[in-house]
Amino acid sequence: GTGVATMKFKSPPVNSLSLDFLTEFCISLEKLENDRACRGVILTSAVPKIFSSGLDITEMCGKSTEHYAEFWRAVQEMWLRLYSSNMVTVAAVNANSLLPSPCQGSSPAGGCLIALTCDYRIMAENPKFSIGLNEAQLGIVAPFWFKDTFVNVVGHRVAESSLQLGSLHSAPEAHRIGLVDELVPEEKLKDRATAVMQQWLALPDHARQLTKTMMRKAVLDRLVAHREEDVQNFISFISKESIQKSLRMYMEMLKKKKG
Amino acid sequence: GTGVATMKFKSPPVNSLSLDFLTEFCISLEKLENDRACRGVILTSAVPKIFSSGLDITEMCGKSTEHYAEFWRAVQEMWLRLYSSNMVTVAAVNANSLLPSPCQGSSPAGGCLIALTCDYRIMAENPKFSIGLNEAQLGIVAPFWFKDTFVNVVGHRVAESSLQLGSLHSAPEAHRIGLVDELVPEEKLKDRATAVMQQWLALPDHARQLTKTMMRKAVLDRLVAHREEDVQNFISFISKESIQKSLRMYMEMLKKKKG
Amino acid sequence: GTGVATMKFKSPPVNSLSLDFLTEFCISLEKLENDRACRGVILTSAVPKIFSSGLDITEMCGKSTEHYAEFWRAVQEMWLRLYSSNMVTVAAVNANSLLPSPCQGSSPAGGCLIALTCDYRIMAENPKFSIGLNEAQLGIVAPFWFKDTFVNVVGHRVAESSLQLGSLHSAPEAHRIGLVDELVPEEKLKDRATAVMQQWLALPDHARQLTKTMMRKAVLDRLVAHREEDVQNFISFISKESIQKSLRMYMEMLKKKKG
Repeated sequence: GTGVATMKFKSPPVNSLSLDFLTEFCISLEKLENDRACRGVILTSAVPKIFSSGLDITEMCGKSTEHYAEFWRAVQEMWLRLYSSNMVTVAAVNANSLLPSPCQGSSPAGGCLIALTCDYRIMAENPKFSIGLNEAQLGIVAPFWFKDTFVNVVGHRVAESSLQLGSLHSAPEAHRIGLVDELVPEEKLKDRATAVMQQWLALPDHARQLTKTMMRKAVLDRLVAHREEDVQNFISFISKESIQKSLRMYMEMLKKKKG
Repeated sequence: GTGVATMKFKSPPVNSLSLDFLTEFCISLEKLENDRACRGVILTSAVPKIFSSGLDITEMCGKSTEHYAEFWRAVQEMWLRLYSSNMVTVAAVNANSLLPSPCQGSSPAGGCLIALTCDYRIMAENPKFSIGLNEAQLGIVAPFWFKDTFVNVVGHRVAESSLQLGSLHSAPEAHRIGLVDELVPEEKLKDRATAVMQQWLALPDHARQLTKTMMRKAVLDRLVAHREEDVQNFISFISKESIQKSLRMYMEMLKKKKG
Repeated sequence: GTGVATMKFKSPPVNSLSLDFLTEFCISLEKLENDRACRGVILTSAVPKIFSSGLDITEMCGKSTEHYAEFWRAVQEMWLRLYSSNMVTVAAVNANSLLPSPCQGSSPAGGCLIALTCDYRIMAENPKFSIGLNEAQLGIVAPFWFKDTFVNVVGHRVAESSLQLGSLHSAPEAHRIGLVDELVPEEKLKDRATAVMQQWLALPDHARQLTKTMMRKAVLDRLVAHREEDVQNFISFISKESIQKSLRMYMEMLKKKKG
């Protein structure tokens, strides 16, 4: 074998990060992590024109406190496993979202987070495709560990304005600010991801893994130390009537766009 | 109303940040902050060719210890209020300083600090205009919170050499290193600032404010925790005869340039 | 005098950072540091086509625990002295390594570290020349203070991938990512280093030194606080049979290339 797995997101219509999706994602990732033959994983989408539409808003709207807690722990778990993965992780972003978005009940933020959490990000070269942490547009706030991950990739200034504006960056802009490492024509995305992976796998695993841990430990430790607090913050924020109303309006708007 | 205020610096000839100026600035800002109808503020200058010439050197030269303390607390207060403002803050830098400088008793550093402390910086596109934290040229040292603010905007490497050299960056260079976010022809500065403000105000205030707090809290907390220590540092440094001599020489030089 | 010293590395064939070299380097640097007439130092190489081939692998291979400890303390000492130097430090990198490398028993990483530790880096404009922290290629891991120094210069994202890949960046790429501040034709390297030094020396020493300390203190303090721990980490890592084997293989490869 090549030692490389490909995880294709396949949760039509728009690869929303639902509780089921996240649970399955973590199980798949753990299996690969424990498979000594697997040294790298390429994350991409099996759904045309969409990488992931992000966190599933229906999981955050009109549900019980227990449900919110379970959902948020699953988001944390996904990030913790992926950001600390011993494998080389390459995101092949075949369009995070195509605007105007036909997404139903979704925000692109989670898809961007997955890409940010990988070692390397390649995006299809299409100015209509966009990527970003757009929580602010929904009236919600990215948690501190989304922010830490984002700052590690694009630096403080860009992260500050992008998070405040909830910016969705076009592919060329995403490349310019370092949010993605390179752009390739859509039809070459898969080949390029494979080539990049080979380049990373040419290095001895052990030193690379220790280096990755050294670079990411501070940010990982911060969530681990404040995990339950972060869950409680999420619950109390998302349970507010004003936030629930804002999410319902966003979903209405998406439905209209679709219809 | 549009919900947008414009604060025009008007302290001829060069908008020095004197104790009076800073006190008035803080009062104006607080009024706007407490006015629920006001959601954003554009900072610019009413004096042609100069945004602000920076901290007023006459406040730092030949005065009493008590005066130095009062002045420095006013500088801290201005920064603390502006960096933590709930409003959207846009700096429209209509030339920080025009070199060779006709400024009397002034350094551009404070003007640059005000711009750095905003959410977004637009500068008039004129290669003769310049901006920077030039303390080192006067033989003085930027305090740690000027440095923290600067690093958040331009990153560690650029901040390190720029602060050591007391660099005044020309408008194109300031844009290249990220010290200003964009350049526009001077006559379009006002319209562009208004357009940028509208873009920021299109977002729900609450999420944007929480995001800004998340991004800036660490740096704000650091000054709050060490505020009195920072005042004492300033006093003991500025009271040194060597520093006083250096400031007097700098003022002489500026007078000669002017004359 | 001009107040500027030039330290020319002269340890043929490839300026390996051996224990002897490091010891001599520290003695020379301390002499200059204590010489009040000396305000700046230019670091360059007297060996054509090579700045420094980096840490001397023969010091890390088949030696006693005591030797490893002594060697590593010398590497720490070199970095501590240079990173905290009161002098202006300019690296004139006349090619860190010319690939395919004719180096024997060497890695370019240490040479890159010396450059990163200076205030300013000028490199000969030759796409065949390269620079980087390539530890990962040898199966070893850069210590946290190499990493901290690197992040301060190129930012987190670039440092993360460059360290994991053990990248050797070509001169143009090194310039693009900010690893070197400017490129000049090889024959102009010396003159340009002198001109840059004059620019830095035009500033008053005291304010510049305090500013440098402010920028670098956090990273310096971190090694000082964990120095002995870092020595023990190095010893236990380098003593592993798998690492020793990997280093022997690397030296064999270099000998073959040379032969």
